Amino acid sequence: MFSLTPKEDKFFNLFVETANIAYEASKLLVEFLKDLDNSEENLKKLKEVEHEGDRKQHEILKQLNNTFITPFDREDIYLIAKDTDDIIDLIESTASRFVMLNVNNSTEEAEILSRMIVECCQEIIILMEELKNMKTSKELSKKIIEINRIEEEGDKVSRKAIMDIFRGNMEVIEVIKWREIYQYLEDTLDACEDLANVIEGVVMKNA
Amino acid sequence: MFSLTPKEDKFFNLFVETANIAYEASKLLVEFLKDLDNSEENLKKLKEVEHEGDRKQHEILKQLNNTFITPFDREDIYLIAKDTDDIIDLIESTASRFVMLNVNNSTEEAEILSRMIVECCQEIIILMEELKNMKTSKELSKKIIEINRIEEEGDKVSRKAIMDIFRGNMEVIEVIKWREIYQYLEDTLDACEDLANVIEGVVMKNA
Amino acid sequence: MFSLTPKEDKFFNLFVETANIAYEASKLLVEFLKDLDNSEENLKKLKEVEHEGDRKQHEILKQLNNTFITPFDREDIYLIAKDTDDIIDLIESTASRFVMLNVNNSTEEAEILSRMIVECCQEIIILMEELKNMKTSKELSKKIIEINRIEEEGDKVSRKAIMDIFRGNMEVIEVIKWREIYQYLEDTLDACEDLANVIEGVVMKNA
Repeated sequence: MFSLTPKEDKFFNLFVETANIAYEASKLLVEFLKDLDNSEENLKKLKEVEHEGDRKQHEILKQLNNTFITPFDREDIYLIAKDTDDIIDLIESTASRFVMLNVNNSTEEAEILSRMIVECCQEIIILMEELKNMKTSKELSKKIIEINRIEEEGDKVSRKAIMDIFRGNMEVIEVIKWREIYQYLEDTLDACEDLANVIEGVVMKNA
Repeated sequence: MFSLTPKEDKFFNLFVETANIAYEASKLLVEFLKDLDNSEENLKKLKEVEHEGDRKQHEILKQLNNTFITPFDREDIYLIAKDTDDIIDLIESTASRFVMLNVNNSTEEAEILSRMIVECCQEIIILMEELKNMKTSKELSKKIIEINRIEEEGDKVSRKAIMDIFRGNMEVIEVIKWREIYQYLEDTLDACEDLANVIEGVVMKNA
Repeated sequence: MFSLTPKEDKFFNLFVETANIAYEASKLLVEFLKDLDNSEENLKKLKEVEHEGDRKQHEILKQLNNTFITPFDREDIYLIAKDTDDIIDLIESTASRFVMLNVNNSTEEAEILSRMIVECCQEIIILMEELKNMKTSKELSKKIIEINRIEEEGDKVSRKAIMDIFRGNMEVIEVIKWREIYQYLEDTLDACEDLANVIEGVVMKNA
């Protein structure tokens, strides 16, 4: 059997909290795309959530340095914290492209991709919650497979969207903007998959 | 003296197998560039090879988690598997740019760079084969230097190609496309160098 | 108490030396921007400094493999060496964009950002010098905060500059060029922050 000390519990709780911040950010991104007329204002909310994520990551790192015995490899705790923070940063960066590149309309594909990011973040919350039961959980591998599936699906959506912009008669300056936005959406989904794969490794090692 | 158990041998064999998949992918890229009229069809072959690479990487990670004593640092085994997989992914991504960006012609420089990727992958196969003799091999350091030399040469070719597209009177939309394709070709060569440098580190540590 | 053997001293000295190379490179970048008429010639000087950085990094890695007891985690020594080298490489890459993309004029924002890189590199020298006193140094955390502040400030400058180019009536080909140059300037400042954060982690672990 395997029992957790309160200190070990602390890491699992912090992971669930950062996953919830990522989920919060992803929902703000979906709303951001629906209200591009107020993009500068809406971006501020996302920046606040990003800063919250930074503080949470810092808390995990501090905890890590003050804890002698960790529930699993220190290196992996560090990686999980970092990869979750990367997701949050990329969500904010994606939204900020609209302001930076002066893009005032959205597209169906951008909306599909941002909803996929929300789905991934929902699955990540469950991953984090299940992490403390990793030796017996049946949910973990299902959720990891699901995140990989969403990422692959998202890859198809963004590749198709990019194919369209290079085959249509969009103005070149618009091509540049949308090329960059789709890249950020894709990178955000990739970051979700990266985190899922790190967690898969942790589960494999500790099974 | 230093002797290998069958289990340790298994890692070296898996590395040689993934290197062969990378080599296979690189040859398909060269052929892909010669037959851009059928790029969508030819891309499918590359995607299959990419999936084969994914399966092989997964096999290495599974093996890693089931093996108590590894021939060298677990971290380095993980990195070698990951970096070889990155090469394969980047080769597929490079080819997929032609489809995504609607590019139906090739250039001399793109062909030179793709042949350089083949050369690197050939050297990488030898690196992987020699890895089990790392304490005595004289080939390893030669091959690592050679891969670094090819990458540096490739860097000059792609920088020169990019200089040309920004100095000629190519249409802007074409500039965007080729800028991105050369970046992917360069990134693929960089990934080969990254792998060679990781192996160099392993050899240094275990010499 | 905590005392250093001469061998441990060697790492700290090598770190200060690489930080000085990064500082040298950053000053050459500022001068490069002031003399774009001779950019190809001036780029050569930067490439020499970059090669010096490569040699120094190699020396650290060699030293690392020949040293049994290191002043702190081997992994962190490796990361510090790698991240300092990344800064130097990115400075050279930033300058080389001007030659590659055929950009013969500079902008106020590019100059501000390059001076910020110089400032960061100055702070990094002090970080490296203080590293051997990490248990008592009061300077370290101040300098880490300062580098994070500069990076955040730089982020605002480059985002603002990019907003301007997408809102003005610059020719599209120029937009492409400047988008890329600002990205490199921003990536270089990010690399400075990455190094500062790695050092922060080392200090936290060893405090």
